[in-house]
Amino acid sequence: MSAPPASSLPSGAAAPAPLGQPLSYEEAGVRYDVIDPLKVAAQRAAAATAPSLLRHGFAEIGASRGESAYVVDVGPFHLASIVECLGSKALVADAVQELTGRCHYGAIAQDTIAMAINDLVTVGATPLVVQAYWAAGGSAWFEDRGRAEALVAGWKAACDHCGVAWGGGETPALAGIVEAGRIDLAAACTGIVNPKERLSLGENLAAGDAIVLLASSGIHANGLSLARKLAERLPRGYLTEVAPGLRFGEALLAPTTLYSPVTEALWAAGVRVHYAANITGHGWRKLLRHPAPFTYRIDTVPPVPPVLAFIAREAGHDAAEAYGTLNMGAGFALFVPAAQADAAVAAAARCGVPAWVAGRVEAGPKRLLVEPLGLTFGADALALR
Amino acid sequence: MSAPPASSLPSGAAAPAPLGQPLSYEEAGVRYDVIDPLKVAAQRAAAATAPSLLRHGFAEIGASRGESAYVVDVGPFHLASIVECLGSKALVADAVQELTGRCHYGAIAQDTIAMAINDLVTVGATPLVVQAYWAAGGSAWFEDRGRAEALVAGWKAACDHCGVAWGGGETPALAGIVEAGRIDLAAACTGIVNPKERLSLGENLAAGDAIVLLASSGIHANGLSLARKLAERLPRGYLTEVAPGLRFGEALLAPTTLYSPVTEALWAAGVRVHYAANITGHGWRKLLRHPAPFTYRIDTVPPVPPVLAFIAREAGHDAAEAYGTLNMGAGFALFVPAAQADAAVAAAARCGVPAWVAGRVEAGPKRLLVEPLGLTFGADALALR
Repeated sequence: MSAPPASSLPSGAAAPAPLGQPLSYEEAGVRYDVIDPLKVAAQRAAAATAPSLLRHGFAEIGASRGESAYVVDVGPFHLASIVECLGSKALVADAVQELTGRCHYGAIAQDTIAMAINDLVTVGATPLVVQAYWAAGGSAWFEDRGRAEALVAGWKAACDHCGVAWGGGETPALAGIVEAGRIDLAAACTGIVNPKERLSLGENLAAGDAIVLLASSGIHANGLSLARKLAERLPRGYLTEVAPGLRFGEALLAPTTLYSPVTEALWAAGVRVHYAANITGHGWRKLLRHPAPFTYRIDTVPPVPPVLAFIAREAGHDAAEAYGTLNMGAGFALFVPAAQADAAVAAAARCGVPAWVAGRVEAGPKRLLVEPLGLTFGADALALR
Repeated sequence: MSAPPASSLPSGAAAPAPLGQPLSYEEAGVRYDVIDPLKVAAQRAAAATAPSLLRHGFAEIGASRGESAYVVDVGPFHLASIVECLGSKALVADAVQELTGRCHYGAIAQDTIAMAINDLVTVGATPLVVQAYWAAGGSAWFEDRGRAEALVAGWKAACDHCGVAWGGGETPALAGIVEAGRIDLAAACTGIVNPKERLSLGENLAAGDAIVLLASSGIHANGLSLARKLAERLPRGYLTEVAPGLRFGEALLAPTTLYSPVTEALWAAGVRVHYAANITGHGWRKLLRHPAPFTYRIDTVPPVPPVLAFIAREAGHDAAEAYGTLNMGAGFALFVPAAQADAAVAAAARCGVPAWVAGRVEAGPKRLLVEPLGLTFGADALALR
């Protein structure tokens, strides 16, 4: 582990930048350089625990280390598991509710589940069980019955949409750890890769594969720190219109698309997913996630949701910063045999999720070319391992 | 859902009671009456999602609803999963570190894993994979390298002790949700019940079964809100000696005993566990957890760890309140065939965990009799469902 000198680090949230000045993700208070050394140490220690599975007669799928979900071969199928945090999106729901009186915790529930499920399905898993983690800043959070009921109803609806069982969970009141009036939301998910050939850790990823992008519904749950900083410096804040009749706060709170119905439909339709990437933090740089050296050439760019176009414009982001930070309309990427690309798009459409055959995988140095925008991201643009 | 009038609820932590006055758990700021209506609504909604498993060809084990882990029959074995929160014990570690300079996050890591694993094993599951959830109040939390490394090392050691693989996890920086300088710790765990006859949801619990109690190492991670309030009103706070050479803060921070090596050893030794209860919140009332009507008669009470005797004395608890709130030396209860009770004690001892054949299950009205203390807890003493 290594860390930069403490004196160079902000102790808390950065002061808002003056209106009109560009606003980077790091200025919005997220310091990956501080978190990442811990992540590296934790990943190393975690990897060293794998031999314990052998005494149960099982073995980890080593290629899942560093991927979005952890996979263990338990014999008849693989087991996949994950825990994921919502992040700061609940703060936007709180701020918007103060302004409009409207509760968005049903959408927030879906966002939280999407964080876990959309990661879990990248490895080819069918999600089976979700566990809820709702840590409030005190018992008082649960006194707002409408809000609590919206959270419960939204959680159930998202589980039903994904065909998963809501197993249970934890609703601690954590005064002194979670701030008063706030809630820390996370979801754990367990699934199985069944049959085992559904495993999509990228072993079969090859030059010639098509890249299919699935539409996002908006910002999803990544980039909210940036959006919140932006709201602070807008004269009308979350009430600013990002498109006629669509206000910033409500646009941000569009619930994250749940992609597991699509990945299930793909399998049923005979589409063999070679690899998948959930486009979250680091935006389109996530297309570079697979460790092998390939060139990813994008020739078709999905329409950009108004809220993301607004953020990019107001934050003064160029295309490289916008696409390197936000999903910009593509919430999930599938890498499939070229001959199955159209079938993949059709299967997604049947699930109500617009999709595009957006490009292809090529032999060549590791990089992402977004041709319509003249963008290139190199191999060093994403360091997750 | 129903909630008491808002005016009757404390908005945050209660003011410390004057020294010498009794201190109840509710006065310590934990309001189960407010949380429980949400729990009930969530449990009902969760139960309604179970039919989704049928479309995958699986089915939930209905009896696991309301138990400590959720169980699904996936064919060759059962799948069990859970997410659990540490609670407020990290605040004690923070306070003690301020006083002594000593970091206890290695122990805190073990506590967090114990919360998940000790619940998971109650259903007869072998834990396989743990996921870490470490949500800090900002990137700054991770700058203290020694503390971060202790958390990583303690987490790995606890995984190794339990023979589970550390799959990965999430280390968000949640400024604005988690308080600055604090960390919200939780663990998700997935395991399997294999072979299926290891399932210990209580179907076989019967009059004549022995009750075997496993020693706790101290307070574990339940009752810390009470302990923190007590520290506030002690003149020397966490530095108060609870026994010669043993200070309150450090005694509280003894890491929670991990019981999965014992439950694995029991199976290997041929002991068939009919039911198990992790003794956490509600103390010994957890012995009443099983829904069937039985009388639980305890004739042997384990020695009380000095830190728990101290808390009970200083909080002015009588035996009913102490045993109804804290583990009082018994961290885990096993209900086994009487003929296997000695073998269970021996298996636990081989794992380094003292154990006692403490009583028996009898036909009769639902109640817990702790005869050496003259205590009776009735059927209404524990309402978890």
